[in-house]
Amino acid sequence: MNEKFVIGLDYGSDSARAVVVNAKTGETLATAVQYYPRWQKGLYCNPAVNQYRQHPQDYIDVLEGTVKEALKQCPAGTAEQVVGIAFDTTGSTPVFTDAAGTPLSLLPEFAENPNAMFVLWKDHTAIKEAAEINELCKQWKIDYSAYEGGIYSSEWLWAKALHVLREDVAVRSRAYSIVEHCEWLPALLTGAKQSDDIVRSRCACGHKAMWHESWGGLPSEDFLVKLDPLLTGFRARLFEKTETADKAVGHLTPEWAKRLGLTTQVAVAGGAFDCHMGAVGAGITPHTFVRVIGTSTCDIMVASYEEIGDKLIKGICGQVDGSVIPGMIGLEAGQSGFGDIYAWFKRVLEFPLKNIISKSALIDEATKEKLISEAADRIIPMLTAEAEKVPIEESGIIATDWMNGRRTPDANQMLKGTITGLTLGSSAPRIFRALVEATAFGSKAIVDRFRNEGVKIEHVIGIGGIALKSPFVMQTLSDVLDMPIKVCQTDQACALGASMFAATAAGLYHKIEDAQQAMNSGFANEYKPNAANVAVYQKLYEQYLKVGQFTEKEMFC
Amino acid sequence: MNEKFVIGLDYGSDSARAVVVNAKTGETLATAVQYYPRWQKGLYCNPAVNQYRQHPQDYIDVLEGTVKEALKQCPAGTAEQVVGIAFDTTGSTPVFTDAAGTPLSLLPEFAENPNAMFVLWKDHTAIKEAAEINELCKQWKIDYSAYEGGIYSSEWLWAKALHVLREDVAVRSRAYSIVEHCEWLPALLTGAKQSDDIVRSRCACGHKAMWHESWGGLPSEDFLVKLDPLLTGFRARLFEKTETADKAVGHLTPEWAKRLGLTTQVAVAGGAFDCHMGAVGAGITPHTFVRVIGTSTCDIMVASYEEIGDKLIKGICGQVDGSVIPGMIGLEAGQSGFGDIYAWFKRVLEFPLKNIISKSALIDEATKEKLISEAADRIIPMLTAEAEKVPIEESGIIATDWMNGRRTPDANQMLKGTITGLTLGSSAPRIFRALVEATAFGSKAIVDRFRNEGVKIEHVIGIGGIALKSPFVMQTLSDVLDMPIKVCQTDQACALGASMFAATAAGLYHKIEDAQQAMNSGFANEYKPNAANVAVYQKLYEQYLKVGQFTEKEMFC
Repeated sequence: MNEKFVIGLDYGSDSARAVVVNAKTGETLATAVQYYPRWQKGLYCNPAVNQYRQHPQDYIDVLEGTVKEALKQCPAGTAEQVVGIAFDTTGSTPVFTDAAGTPLSLLPEFAENPNAMFVLWKDHTAIKEAAEINELCKQWKIDYSAYEGGIYSSEWLWAKALHVLREDVAVRSRAYSIVEHCEWLPALLTGAKQSDDIVRSRCACGHKAMWHESWGGLPSEDFLVKLDPLLTGFRARLFEKTETADKAVGHLTPEWAKRLGLTTQVAVAGGAFDCHMGAVGAGITPHTFVRVIGTSTCDIMVASYEEIGDKLIKGICGQVDGSVIPGMIGLEAGQSGFGDIYAWFKRVLEFPLKNIISKSALIDEATKEKLISEAADRIIPMLTAEAEKVPIEESGIIATDWMNGRRTPDANQMLKGTITGLTLGSSAPRIFRALVEATAFGSKAIVDRFRNEGVKIEHVIGIGGIALKSPFVMQTLSDVLDMPIKVCQTDQACALGASMFAATAAGLYHKIEDAQQAMNSGFANEYKPNAANVAVYQKLYEQYLKVGQFTEKEMFC
Repeated sequence: MNEKFVIGLDYGSDSARAVVVNAKTGETLATAVQYYPRWQKGLYCNPAVNQYRQHPQDYIDVLEGTVKEALKQCPAGTAEQVVGIAFDTTGSTPVFTDAAGTPLSLLPEFAENPNAMFVLWKDHTAIKEAAEINELCKQWKIDYSAYEGGIYSSEWLWAKALHVLREDVAVRSRAYSIVEHCEWLPALLTGAKQSDDIVRSRCACGHKAMWHESWGGLPSEDFLVKLDPLLTGFRARLFEKTETADKAVGHLTPEWAKRLGLTTQVAVAGGAFDCHMGAVGAGITPHTFVRVIGTSTCDIMVASYEEIGDKLIKGICGQVDGSVIPGMIGLEAGQSGFGDIYAWFKRVLEFPLKNIISKSALIDEATKEKLISEAADRIIPMLTAEAEKVPIEESGIIATDWMNGRRTPDANQMLKGTITGLTLGSSAPRIFRALVEATAFGSKAIVDRFRNEGVKIEHVIGIGGIALKSPFVMQTLSDVLDMPIKVCQTDQACALGASMFAATAAGLYHKIEDAQQAMNSGFANEYKPNAANVAVYQKLYEQYLKVGQFTEKEMFC
């Protein structure tokens, strides 16, 4: 037996999945998924104020659970041949640690304190702090937000850290350092003894912590203290250096090797964010626009230094050397709402349905429940089937895709969505079609921005739930972008990407591009633009831009 | 027995109703409603091209049916004490007649020809002809559309007549004159022998046929021939004079007296349109804004010659001396969509509900049908109950009420509706609330136009289905208008108004205002503005105006 295997671990918002992959061929032997147990009960969260916290013990529980379950599905002896493991996670999802690098909520006295837990990417409790950071950035001699799109978000590390420090005296008195989810798991498994030992992720720090080589790493102590004296001293205790995820941060400790049923020969790669590793798993190269299309989109590109140099790409979410592929500049963009917009329209339509069925005296309780759940499954497929039949019309319904604000181009979370061109004949499927077109127009606005800023886009690759499940959405997207779109074979592109980093960190490949070449999943599908639709959509897109400009100008600015 | 009774007949779009009313007190003794039998089967119509035609025999059938049925409900001897009868109908609903004044479709050779039937108000087959009329009006030395709002509609007499003449050689060769529905019924019952005998309605001719005293009646022969030589000669065969509806056009012929079970002593009043007689039934006086609120609204005011003189009120639907109350100028306005907009949203919501229930294997066919019909009844009440709980917010959803175009101010049938300010939390009841507010904002735009043009509005009276059935809509309207709104007790204000004209035509009252005084139904309800909401709605109304200006400017002009 000469085979070598790697394990990719993908930590999403609700669950984590482990894949066991043949390091030579990229073939997936096994996949296991587990939901975070405390999170699933709704613990430590308060949706009314957008507070979303996750307990580190949740991450540990599913780590053991998924790795063991996946290995159990593999032929005997596989575990012994595993040579590498890598993590991708959501982010920015930071936590305060003590000097030993232990998240505070793993200490008994903080075990139930949400402020001592990981602050999930979508937690919006730090809106005020983000505004203060933005204000100070614009006044300061250096705009530290420059490489993060020029607008610092409440979803990111410094805003969240400052918010927690202000809110919680107990956490404040014990907080020594701050660590991202994707940095902590590799550190944990490789036995980091103090916070200084934790290898920092280029991806996380460059995109979310205002870390940049040109100003010597993190923002200056002056800046942070001016922001709030509560931040005094953190900079020195945090880090100067960051690393790309293709390098091993160490090997499994004997304890963790035993807990996971693996050997201490297993190299553990540096961590990165899910979409960034997902883009690698999907086969990203320069001039390829990789889109993770789900409830929202995360769009990733890479560009050589020769191509974009020091140029700042305006209005995207960030540009970080090595955040995706070492040696290239990783560019991040995205739409705040995509599948979430379809899900919103579904909820609107479900409201009368649920109410009328649940209150009817005509059917029994068990049938009601089944009927409501049948409806939940069938609304989107039914709308899709009908919407596909609607002819594209130049004078039809125009919608914008800003029901959850706008991430790129030019982040503005205050924006709201619009539907215009409505008549008494505007049916539910027609409105649904307009919403699908709106999400495609929002995608085109991002593509146009990249191109206008001098970044070439020649290929589009889609991954994520919607890319795999909705040919209607993908065809519309191809027609609107006037470009073919390939969809990856794998439904676990992030975990596959992590396994490529694991294989590279284990020394099986010289560089991540070689792992991409060898381990890619291939494409399941390719959507090609329908020439007849392209011209019509170009006109509709201009209307979309006009509607957007109006709502942005009149309603919220 | 010294009582005297009158019969008011109200011909709507789908059905007619007869009320038997005590001519002294206004008390309603009986009401009978019948649907047009041919119309109900969908005959002679083609909704795909907005062709809506009604057979005169339908009108005759329900005339006999409703009058006899209503009289049957009254104490014995009532029929002998009936002294007057009056008609209100939809309009403009014209038909071609032969020289005897008989609608062509009552002749055997035209019995099944839709072009020989009444062209219902909402028939839109004459859009091209209306455009030609408007073009010619703007070029001509006299703008004959001036007193009809300055924009001639495809729903009106000349456009429809020209369209039929162009389309149908058979009708063209036989057509002698043109008569409105509200003129034909009184002529029929009083035995008009030729088309010249038909008394022409001031209301119909002034609002829809470009008849005005200042230019000697109808548009000149030159104008009509220039429009199309097919119109040559019609002007001379039509009419010069028009009459208000308070005057008798004659008495029942022996034949009709017999057919209706009445006497030949019964005076028959001149006809007018439903909303105009409805406004009289509702108690219209100068400075009172009477709104017939249903699927759309028809808004009526009266002003003395002293108040507005020769001044043209810009952007309303028409101003005609005597069209409502003799001696005063009747002003007409309205919203193209009101209840229809709520019904549209209901249809959007019903789509998945109907589809999922009807295709489910979980319940039997009979239960499906009942559940769908239960849903149809309950959606609007359920939305209303939930929408009432939503707090008024300044930054909420803003909609316009143009899903069926805009009638006033400034008619533009090409406009479409918009919903903006949408977020992922915008629920069905919130959207419904925004639509209700939009219809109220559309109402305010009409009120503001009247006021800006110098027409005082001091009172608002509501009649029609929505006025009586939806306290939520009426309270919102009161808050948005910042005025109290009274709702009439009667749910048959049009028929009651007709009975006032019947009583006046029969000589029981000196003038229609005296009949109004004696025979009014009183008010069921009065909505008063909630001061806290008024200020918020003023701001939201400004946003409504901005959204409207944008969609009008960018999308369709």
